[in-house]
Amino acid sequence: MYRSHTCGDLRASHNNQEVTLSGWVQKSRDKGFVIWVDLRDRYGVTQLIFDEERTSKSLLEQARSLGREFVIQVKGTVIERASKNPNMPTGDIELLVKELTILNKALVPPFTIEDKTDGGEDLRMKYRYLDIRRNPVKNNLIFRHKVSMEVRKFLSNEGFIEVETPYLIKSTPEGARDFVVPSRMNEGQFYALPQSPQTFKQLLMVGGMDKYFQIVKCFRDEDLRADRQPEFTQIDCEMAFVEQEDILNVFEGLTKYLLKEIKGINIENFPRMTYDDAMRKYGNDKPDIRFGMEFGELNAIAQHKDFSIFNDAELVVGIAVPGGAAYTRKEIDALVDWVRRPQIGAKGMVYVRFNEDGTYKSSVDKFYDEADLAKWAEVTNAKPGDLICVLSGDANKTRSQLSALRMELAQRLGLRNPEEFAPLWVIDFPLLELDEETGNYHAMHHPFTSPKPGQLEMLDTDPGAVKANAYDLVLNGNEIGGGSIRIHDKEMQATMFKHLGFTPEEAKAQFGFLMDAFQFGAPPHGGLAFGLDRLVSIIGGQETIRDFIAFPKNNSGRDVMIDAPAFIDNEQLKELHLKLDLKA
Amino acid sequence: MYRSHTCGDLRASHNNQEVTLSGWVQKSRDKGFVIWVDLRDRYGVTQLIFDEERTSKSLLEQARSLGREFVIQVKGTVIERASKNPNMPTGDIELLVKELTILNKALVPPFTIEDKTDGGEDLRMKYRYLDIRRNPVKNNLIFRHKVSMEVRKFLSNEGFIEVETPYLIKSTPEGARDFVVPSRMNEGQFYALPQSPQTFKQLLMVGGMDKYFQIVKCFRDEDLRADRQPEFTQIDCEMAFVEQEDILNVFEGLTKYLLKEIKGINIENFPRMTYDDAMRKYGNDKPDIRFGMEFGELNAIAQHKDFSIFNDAELVVGIAVPGGAAYTRKEIDALVDWVRRPQIGAKGMVYVRFNEDGTYKSSVDKFYDEADLAKWAEVTNAKPGDLICVLSGDANKTRSQLSALRMELAQRLGLRNPEEFAPLWVIDFPLLELDEETGNYHAMHHPFTSPKPGQLEMLDTDPGAVKANAYDLVLNGNEIGGGSIRIHDKEMQATMFKHLGFTPEEAKAQFGFLMDAFQFGAPPHGGLAFGLDRLVSIIGGQETIRDFIAFPKNNSGRDVMIDAPAFIDNEQLKELHLKLDLKA
Repeated sequence: MYRSHTCGDLRASHNNQEVTLSGWVQKSRDKGFVIWVDLRDRYGVTQLIFDEERTSKSLLEQARSLGREFVIQVKGTVIERASKNPNMPTGDIELLVKELTILNKALVPPFTIEDKTDGGEDLRMKYRYLDIRRNPVKNNLIFRHKVSMEVRKFLSNEGFIEVETPYLIKSTPEGARDFVVPSRMNEGQFYALPQSPQTFKQLLMVGGMDKYFQIVKCFRDEDLRADRQPEFTQIDCEMAFVEQEDILNVFEGLTKYLLKEIKGINIENFPRMTYDDAMRKYGNDKPDIRFGMEFGELNAIAQHKDFSIFNDAELVVGIAVPGGAAYTRKEIDALVDWVRRPQIGAKGMVYVRFNEDGTYKSSVDKFYDEADLAKWAEVTNAKPGDLICVLSGDANKTRSQLSALRMELAQRLGLRNPEEFAPLWVIDFPLLELDEETGNYHAMHHPFTSPKPGQLEMLDTDPGAVKANAYDLVLNGNEIGGGSIRIHDKEMQATMFKHLGFTPEEAKAQFGFLMDAFQFGAPPHGGLAFGLDRLVSIIGGQETIRDFIAFPKNNSGRDVMIDAPAFIDNEQLKELHLKLDLKA
Repeated sequence: MYRSHTCGDLRASHNNQEVTLSGWVQKSRDKGFVIWVDLRDRYGVTQLIFDEERTSKSLLEQARSLGREFVIQVKGTVIERASKNPNMPTGDIELLVKELTILNKALVPPFTIEDKTDGGEDLRMKYRYLDIRRNPVKNNLIFRHKVSMEVRKFLSNEGFIEVETPYLIKSTPEGARDFVVPSRMNEGQFYALPQSPQTFKQLLMVGGMDKYFQIVKCFRDEDLRADRQPEFTQIDCEMAFVEQEDILNVFEGLTKYLLKEIKGINIENFPRMTYDDAMRKYGNDKPDIRFGMEFGELNAIAQHKDFSIFNDAELVVGIAVPGGAAYTRKEIDALVDWVRRPQIGAKGMVYVRFNEDGTYKSSVDKFYDEADLAKWAEVTNAKPGDLICVLSGDANKTRSQLSALRMELAQRLGLRNPEEFAPLWVIDFPLLELDEETGNYHAMHHPFTSPKPGQLEMLDTDPGAVKANAYDLVLNGNEIGGGSIRIHDKEMQATMFKHLGFTPEEAKAQFGFLMDAFQFGAPPHGGLAFGLDRLVSIIGGQETIRDFIAFPKNNSGRDVMIDAPAFIDNEQLKELHLKLDLKA
């Protein structure tokens, strides 16, 4: 038996007990006549004491030989500490060691195993197993486990069945790029790893499974942006005989349950906002509503003066920045530079100081008088002391630029408190999205999303205006999940594929099994998927999903710890009926 | 709202209530003046009634148009049935329908959606979504969900943390064949799908995670035997600061818990048997101990007579078949033929009838008298009325042949009751296994298994004799899991790789990250993995794992429903830096 207790167990009530502990040497302090060693495991830290009076000389020497991160086992007596440490759960006691066994030595770790480490991201990833010893990472993984357990408990209690769908499926050119897996037994053919279990969960509905869920890995071979992973985890759900309202209710319930169980936070009903409203008010389909700064559209009151930039613009739109009237000229210039950076792309920014004394001072005083600016303040809901920032141009681009500015300013103003939670349903998403490069429409959610009843005909006349019963759950400005009511009729699915540019042959080759299934009694159904990595990181009060993944990959899709991907044998390639086709 | 109740909900207490149901038409009986329709969903079946007196003519006509598996919604009044059906939970009532909506029509299904279907395996797999509507398959999937939930609950309560390990890892030539995944971003390189999360769980132990589990998909590109799947699910566990005893206790606890919670069966402590004993007594490292028929070794008493076949044999070994003395000559000849089939490979079989009257009659009476045969009976524990079957030859082969005969006879005798559960720990497995073709030793469990303390030196002198703290949990003659105490010392791991035929360079290239990790304070650790598919099928009282997998693959590794694997575009291949290298 390696231990009778963990390093987090012992209290004053254990005084005088003989115990055995195992763990890692966190640090030691050698005062000559006495040596203290902090012993750490997953559960906490316990102070060990060796001293000249009560410890044999050889044991004292042995203690002296211990290095950081050595793995040891100690037997001894729990004693009261001379000076207690109220900041440690075990701070009332220490262990007077009688026997010490070194279970494994340790090289000096490449970074300190402390809450605040001196290790950079790269080093921590290479030695992730050491990084996991650190409380912040360890606690994030335990937190993730807890969230997953609670998700399963809630959904299972609601009658959902977790069904495992296959990982070796079929590649479809639609959507993001698939990872593929060459088949040895089926020469020249490939499996694909699922981007999501979408078609399988729909088939489970056709199969009468009614309420399905799965916490499941999904795979996308995309060029990795910051905080994207080639493999990610989804809470995937589907329900039959439901309308949008039923689905929103269940997953609003799940989210409330998690916030309550995990964070102790009660949230009443979640607000809902249409996609169109979200774009108009926040320039964004995942608005952070922990704070205001809603958009005010100024076309009606700012155009048709002599300011040609506004007159030529499709949209003139502003926000009021709380307290911003106090910004110096230099600070405002910096803001203008910020929106003009290539990542944001605005041409410039008009601003209005709404001074505490009720007067206005703007960068366009030549064109607008105080009465004009007062109207701007009214529309942007500015108060004395605020700064009104106004962008103009192409409507979509301008909204996106102003949204970026709004988020940046809120961050600077401390309005994005990670311990405050503001969920929001964004509903009535468009069915299709215009690809501005190709001029083609593609499915905004995916090709299985049903248009709103009665809007099918509009696909021919005004495809961009067709709405779907598609919805996203937004939390603190992050999309944590989304879903839709699906098509369950073969003809409608065929029509949909046609509008997405599939020939009937392509549709049949790729999704024939699904359309066939719809002929054998498919129930109305819909569902949703939450991104677990994102959900956990937001509820955990952090922004980086990587911190909540045990073994994440870097931005080139590499696992730098195990050094994967890697080259494989020619023999292995041959068995898979493949040759490399390298550029060099 | 599609339904107020499910088709399994309604009872006499609902009489006179207005309800809405949705589901599938199971069948209908049209008596002209009255039509009964059985409406089915996941939860049960409810009888609908339409009759001339109380139903409008148009509604009656609509009911008459319903085909099997149509998806419908009905509104109506719950009424008492004229003739109750005590075999149906809803058999006291029926629903007098007032409104009927056809939600989706259905083609006639290719096989009947009944507990006993007329559909063969191939058809059921192609239309698996229809197969899942059948109670046996549906209930198996729900059963699997329940087992998974209980596993997670138990392990979580024991302090285990579920940590998700990556699916895109690195290929290693050791062990079974990997499925690989070409990397687009890392030209010419490949990920591999994990055969198990073995190295990652060990790194989690180095990372201090202490008690890890995961219910996780694993992948092996093997030629598929019956009831093997290229992707399968494992309950994967690892613990640090433990000895074998700690691990066995936890997972014996888990198994007892499952049998208790799921089957209501209490099992006291699990028996343990060494690998050597299992091979000697049952010719098999996963003996079914629901019945006796233990092997009796007859060398000492049957050799050195004039029967040269026995005299030349390395092993002479028999079993007593209960009641077998009553077999006719023809039946016994059939048994001899059975063991001589190529799959079994015995050259012949000697038999002894131990008659009810205490006399003996054998196929070798020429060489052995009654006193000899009485000793055989004693050693094989035969009773009057039994048949003693004796095989001889090479020890390993003969044991394996007799084991097959023992299982076959037990099956015929009805001794393998699927509702009886006989778990067994098989312990002290050999560390290495001789590959008879190549003459090389390879790891019996895997290369990370530690030899028993003090046996490391024997690797040089008598490698086949080295034992490991490696163990399997056997349930009803099936290995449901296995594990070992691992190596946690870099030097020992290097020695182990050397004995397995790795050069130091190969070991470093493939497992350098693990050996590096062992230098930074690796704790003693060990673990185990259960095969979930197998566990669920055995606890479920069935033998075929495919029946407990939602979307299984066939013996060529194909998903015949979605028709995967499949060919992919040349463009996709090019992006992956690959060319096909086909034979034709």
